[in-house]
Amino acid sequence: MKRIDLNCDMGESFGAWTMGMDAEVIRHVTSANIACGFHAGDPRVMYKTVKLAKDHGVGVGAHPGYPDLVGFGRRNLDCTPDEVRDYVAYQIGAMKAFCALHGVSLQHVKPHGSLYNMSVGNEAMIRAIVEAVAGVDQNVIYLALGGAQEPLVMKIAKEAGIRVAFEAFPDRAYTPEGKLVPRSLPGAVVKDPQAASERALRMAKEGKIITTDGSVLEMRIDTICVHGDNPSAVELVKNIRAAIEGEGIAVVPMGSFI
Amino acid sequence: MKRIDLNCDMGESFGAWTMGMDAEVIRHVTSANIACGFHAGDPRVMYKTVKLAKDHGVGVGAHPGYPDLVGFGRRNLDCTPDEVRDYVAYQIGAMKAFCALHGVSLQHVKPHGSLYNMSVGNEAMIRAIVEAVAGVDQNVIYLALGGAQEPLVMKIAKEAGIRVAFEAFPDRAYTPEGKLVPRSLPGAVVKDPQAASERALRMAKEGKIITTDGSVLEMRIDTICVHGDNPSAVELVKNIRAAIEGEGIAVVPMGSFI
Amino acid sequence: MKRIDLNCDMGESFGAWTMGMDAEVIRHVTSANIACGFHAGDPRVMYKTVKLAKDHGVGVGAHPGYPDLVGFGRRNLDCTPDEVRDYVAYQIGAMKAFCALHGVSLQHVKPHGSLYNMSVGNEAMIRAIVEAVAGVDQNVIYLALGGAQEPLVMKIAKEAGIRVAFEAFPDRAYTPEGKLVPRSLPGAVVKDPQAASERALRMAKEGKIITTDGSVLEMRIDTICVHGDNPSAVELVKNIRAAIEGEGIAVVPMGSFI
Amino acid sequence: MKRIDLNCDMGESFGAWTMGMDAEVIRHVTSANIACGFHAGDPRVMYKTVKLAKDHGVGVGAHPGYPDLVGFGRRNLDCTPDEVRDYVAYQIGAMKAFCALHGVSLQHVKPHGSLYNMSVGNEAMIRAIVEAVAGVDQNVIYLALGGAQEPLVMKIAKEAGIRVAFEAFPDRAYTPEGKLVPRSLPGAVVKDPQAASERALRMAKEGKIITTDGSVLEMRIDTICVHGDNPSAVELVKNIRAAIEGEGIAVVPMGSFI
Repeated sequence: MKRIDLNCDMGESFGAWTMGMDAEVIRHVTSANIACGFHAGDPRVMYKTVKLAKDHGVGVGAHPGYPDLVGFGRRNLDCTPDEVRDYVAYQIGAMKAFCALHGVSLQHVKPHGSLYNMSVGNEAMIRAIVEAVAGVDQNVIYLALGGAQEPLVMKIAKEAGIRVAFEAFPDRAYTPEGKLVPRSLPGAVVKDPQAASERALRMAKEGKIITTDGSVLEMRIDTICVHGDNPSAVELVKNIRAAIEGEGIAVVPMGSFI
Repeated sequence: MKRIDLNCDMGESFGAWTMGMDAEVIRHVTSANIACGFHAGDPRVMYKTVKLAKDHGVGVGAHPGYPDLVGFGRRNLDCTPDEVRDYVAYQIGAMKAFCALHGVSLQHVKPHGSLYNMSVGNEAMIRAIVEAVAGVDQNVIYLALGGAQEPLVMKIAKEAGIRVAFEAFPDRAYTPEGKLVPRSLPGAVVKDPQAASERALRMAKEGKIITTDGSVLEMRIDTICVHGDNPSAVELVKNIRAAIEGEGIAVVPMGSFI
Repeated sequence: MKRIDLNCDMGESFGAWTMGMDAEVIRHVTSANIACGFHAGDPRVMYKTVKLAKDHGVGVGAHPGYPDLVGFGRRNLDCTPDEVRDYVAYQIGAMKAFCALHGVSLQHVKPHGSLYNMSVGNEAMIRAIVEAVAGVDQNVIYLALGGAQEPLVMKIAKEAGIRVAFEAFPDRAYTPEGKLVPRSLPGAVVKDPQAASERALRMAKEGKIITTDGSVLEMRIDTICVHGDNPSAVELVKNIRAAIEGEGIAVVPMGSFI
Repeated sequence: MKRIDLNCDMGESFGAWTMGMDAEVIRHVTSANIACGFHAGDPRVMYKTVKLAKDHGVGVGAHPGYPDLVGFGRRNLDCTPDEVRDYVAYQIGAMKAFCALHGVSLQHVKPHGSLYNMSVGNEAMIRAIVEAVAGVDQNVIYLALGGAQEPLVMKIAKEAGIRVAFEAFPDRAYTPEGKLVPRSLPGAVVKDPQAASERALRMAKEGKIITTDGSVLEMRIDTICVHGDNPSAVELVKNIRAAIEGEGIAVVPMGSFI
């Protein structure tokens, strides 16, 4: 039976501020990327969000970001590879503490925001992230963008002895080369829910994406990234999951098949 | 053979700011309480300090504090027990990540500053701290102030299944009841190095402290807290160790005998 | 003609996190207490909120808090009077920068959360706050809790040469002595909107409050504190203002009559 | 009589951490660039440093940086011009509060670290900084790097109606075009104190710099940037000042002649 994972950012509340509809979207996804306190999240939020994921049988992931709370980790910050490794290691460790408190294992690590974007195809940054993941917990999966960078990521992860899951974005446009169209360009984001849903289904079923020039891109896709920001986003996730399951594909946490 | 541990705060540098003579004092102590980024320390500093401890065979401890960098964790902050547990768990986890990167085990956890002071004899706070330690890593030792609160701490730690090490301060005055004289009172700090050295020796050799009224207090002392702030502090540590070893007492990391 | 001010906390968003219905409630109040970046708010939010207040003819106030973002400034933090003065001065100065950018004057300063609560009746803290206000801008009004502490606050403010406005809370219970019933006690908060509205009207019209024992407390009330957290809170503010204006009382910024 | 200013970064301590020899170097310089709490400094440190400058008749400058305490504001952070304007305005305002507390005027604003470096020759950033300076206080001088960017800075500052002071670095190599040699290149820093002292003297006396190809660069130099990090740096400042004064040039705060 074919299997796919649905991952979603969560635990992005901070102190008195609430963000995201975690309690709703958690019912429809299989992996949670939980903020670790640098760009969002705080120890109380982490405690509660790991519990929420556990209660729903959702795989717990650490979602480390740059130490830029006011910028939500979305701004480039010129860090050295050593800083990247240590920032990522620190946040993985912190998340593992809450996994331990709740008696679950950390399933994966997915860098957030600018840390994620800057690492795509960047060997030094990928090495720094992999060094952190492998050094802290050999059993944790590194969740990376699929497509053009797949061979580079695989090579580095294999050397370090860790597993990788590759993800795709149904709501993002891809170049024929397998790269995300930068958000600064027109058409970078697929805004129509129906189109996004169809793209998600093609990803899960065939591992394929229609690119900007109409060509078909085939790539390894283990998990599909979805969002839980607002009611219509949650509705879309629900529809995507129903469509995928309607095709007889199992939607399960990546840890069960990677 | 009698054994005692010498513990010292370390890793209190932050970013571009240096604090403490870690590279000097590490040669004379057996356990390091390493700051975890909330009141001092940062991921790069933690990486380097854990390595320093490992290279010298010194036991690595997490030294969690309140999230008050500008106050160095020394100011009371009114936290709930849930906040205390989650702040401590977060910081222990972060420290364990660097232990993993360097292939060492986390030996102990010692709360810092106001978190330490406010927890003394405070059942709710002790429970919160113990819940964090036991929940994150059953093998880690909780390092607490010895004396009056010993029975309370032992009871809570036993229930949680973790070990405790009790410490004493050769440079602090004690009441006959086995409590530290608050720093706000005159005579709270023993400033004469010779006197501090003698007190340390009596602690290590006999488990005894001369209190403010001249009476002798006997208590369990597993580790003696020393400082590495400046050259004369380092010199004092060196002298204390030499005096203790001169009596045929082994100075070793607490993890080897607790 | 009788005059009263309605003040409301605003600008409590931070980075990617939104809080409060500023754009709605601003239409009904006359003074805004704008967060200054320590417990909430950030430079971009401050810029926009000062502009929002200016565009609606609402008096701009600085709302300084403790440096405790994750705790939203609501937790006691043991600061010295010098720290309080400098934290308050820093935040007033920052707010004045945005007033200057928008060509408005800073009208008032109202401490936030725990800084506000801990200062009530506390001479050293009131002095520290007044020293900051008077030292940074002699023309700025210090907004303080009315009732029991009025004589103390007036004495200190007069010596420093600054004006004070006293506020009352229609949704909070008062003791016969003119103190707020602590939130930890039952009945501390008046939850019925109709009752809160009636209390507000009595405050504006007669300067009177029905206390916990049914007695009538008379005190100086220059401004009434309202909230804009959610739609029903905004609705309540609208009703309160309509009721007050229905009695022929002018609802205007405190700066016009203090 | 010819006049020149000597400016130096100060107030870079933070909480329990000390940095720089402010109390020594203040005796030899005429303008202080004081950190404002984003990359270094805190309200207590700002209070004390403004007082120190006042007591020595040294011009007080705000030294705003990126909100990156752990990186000391030295790392590029991808901010929008609006963010730059608001970050700078916020910090200027905060510094002006301490000037007001001590009864002095803010003399100048000099961006720090990466904010300084990224702004050199960057029109959008210069406009953002100038908008903040001019918007907050028309009387404050914008302190910018002299040389290649002088015409651009002058044009923008003139439009905004503020004054500019241009600085040069005796310990940095310059290209023939009037740009600093990036620190990543060899020879970027002039390490020999004697050479640095001679360069400083030529700057003060003739407004000239020997560039990397031996050619002589002539540029407007109002102030020379010196350092107070360590005893030999302080000694160098002392020597530079003595050499300049020995030529009959007055070393005075830039505010007196710009």
